[in-house]
Amino acid sequence: MAEPIVTGCMLVIGNEILSGRTQDTNLAHLAKVLNELGVRLVEARVIPDIEDVIVNTVNECRAKFDYIFTTGGIGPTHDDITAVCMAKAFGVEVIRHPEIEAVIRRREASAEVMESRLLMARVPEGSKLIDNPTGGPQGFQIGNVFVMAGVPSVMQAMASTFSDKQIKGAKPVRSRSVGAYLGESAVAGALEDIQNQHPEVDLGSYPFYREKGYGTNLVMRGTDEAELEVVKSKVGEMIKSFGAEPFDP
Amino acid sequence: MAEPIVTGCMLVIGNEILSGRTQDTNLAHLAKVLNELGVRLVEARVIPDIEDVIVNTVNECRAKFDYIFTTGGIGPTHDDITAVCMAKAFGVEVIRHPEIEAVIRRREASAEVMESRLLMARVPEGSKLIDNPTGGPQGFQIGNVFVMAGVPSVMQAMASTFSDKQIKGAKPVRSRSVGAYLGESAVAGALEDIQNQHPEVDLGSYPFYREKGYGTNLVMRGTDEAELEVVKSKVGEMIKSFGAEPFDP
Repeated sequence: MAEPIVTGCMLVIGNEILSGRTQDTNLAHLAKVLNELGVRLVEARVIPDIEDVIVNTVNECRAKFDYIFTTGGIGPTHDDITAVCMAKAFGVEVIRHPEIEAVIRRREASAEVMESRLLMARVPEGSKLIDNPTGGPQGFQIGNVFVMAGVPSVMQAMASTFSDKQIKGAKPVRSRSVGAYLGESAVAGALEDIQNQHPEVDLGSYPFYREKGYGTNLVMRGTDEAELEVVKSKVGEMIKSFGAEPFDP
Repeated sequence: MAEPIVTGCMLVIGNEILSGRTQDTNLAHLAKVLNELGVRLVEARVIPDIEDVIVNTVNECRAKFDYIFTTGGIGPTHDDITAVCMAKAFGVEVIRHPEIEAVIRRREASAEVMESRLLMARVPEGSKLIDNPTGGPQGFQIGNVFVMAGVPSVMQAMASTFSDKQIKGAKPVRSRSVGAYLGESAVAGALEDIQNQHPEVDLGSYPFYREKGYGTNLVMRGTDEAELEVVKSKVGEMIKSFGAEPFDP
């Protein structure tokens, strides 16, 4: 039987990603963190710093997926509108959170600079905080939406605090990989046969080119470790049947 | 008055991106290519190799945005379902395209391997081809949807062939950047004032940390080069008013 799946959707908020100025690296990191918690990242969207777009996307996605994770837009400047948008999406007020305020006030600043920094203490009413081990302002959670910073080191610190207290997942996905100096087309038919025998395992093929020539990495992913071992051994036999040697990629 | 905007949406198709196994780099590249053609990348979605999801996402997005660009899922194996999904989305048949077939048959192979490779010649009926300067199988365009390979070198080769013959854009977005050793909070208020004076320019601030300390890059983006120069000069004056020196980041 198919395992129950707990789904996650990531919203990457920021014009700088869509303009190509900044390369997102948070998605790959978050995918791995969530998997360990048993949450399957099944969609990600990159959206601009535009209020209507953020509000509509959050409301569409939080109804559709079990958990939503956002990165970006919680800094101290005019284009940091994520907190305000989340409050609109949930139909609640924006408040200044005393615990975030306390963290911000630890570092001294002029009255004007402090006023800007305190924008980072805004959260929708009813939010819980996400700890920030870097010592900076916390993120927040409202409903099934987790709101994190966009700076990778800060986002990673926040995500490192996730546990089964906040996030109720299912079984993590595990993977096995086998490489072979065979073209993707050479193994396509045999691979499909194995895939059909194991519909619960996700079999992917990824071509590569190295000094030794063209090859393919075959990756099998699933929640059942015993079945993965069976599939890995079938894939190894299949590679040998084409006269090549399987190796650890 | 606001410039007319031609919108683009990217669909990154592939489980390997959502699992965190592969880091997408196509988005940042495509964003820049499209911008030169006058198309604004305003959304991107990463979606899995699942037929219903691909078909529904394509149909939702092609109605919502001027152009759609997809990467991934046009290889020779069982999980390469993009061509079939595009045909379903447009309600047309899948055909084997003779020009792609001719490219594929240039490289000899056994009958079985050739049969797998020829899966890459599948396109929805009525498609136009996207040239592939690497010499491999072409991509295709159907309606406002451009379907490209996921391997970055191949995707970049295909995108390099885009011109105003297929893609009718508006004015490209240009940018200016100024750096300063000032915290993001320090400039937030003054930056917002400048933003309010120039609503057509998109003003972003990006904090950084280097040996010399904390600083912020200020990036202004817009279609009017003269206005960008005015804004850049105001941002420079603003930085000096805080006792810091603007520099080229």
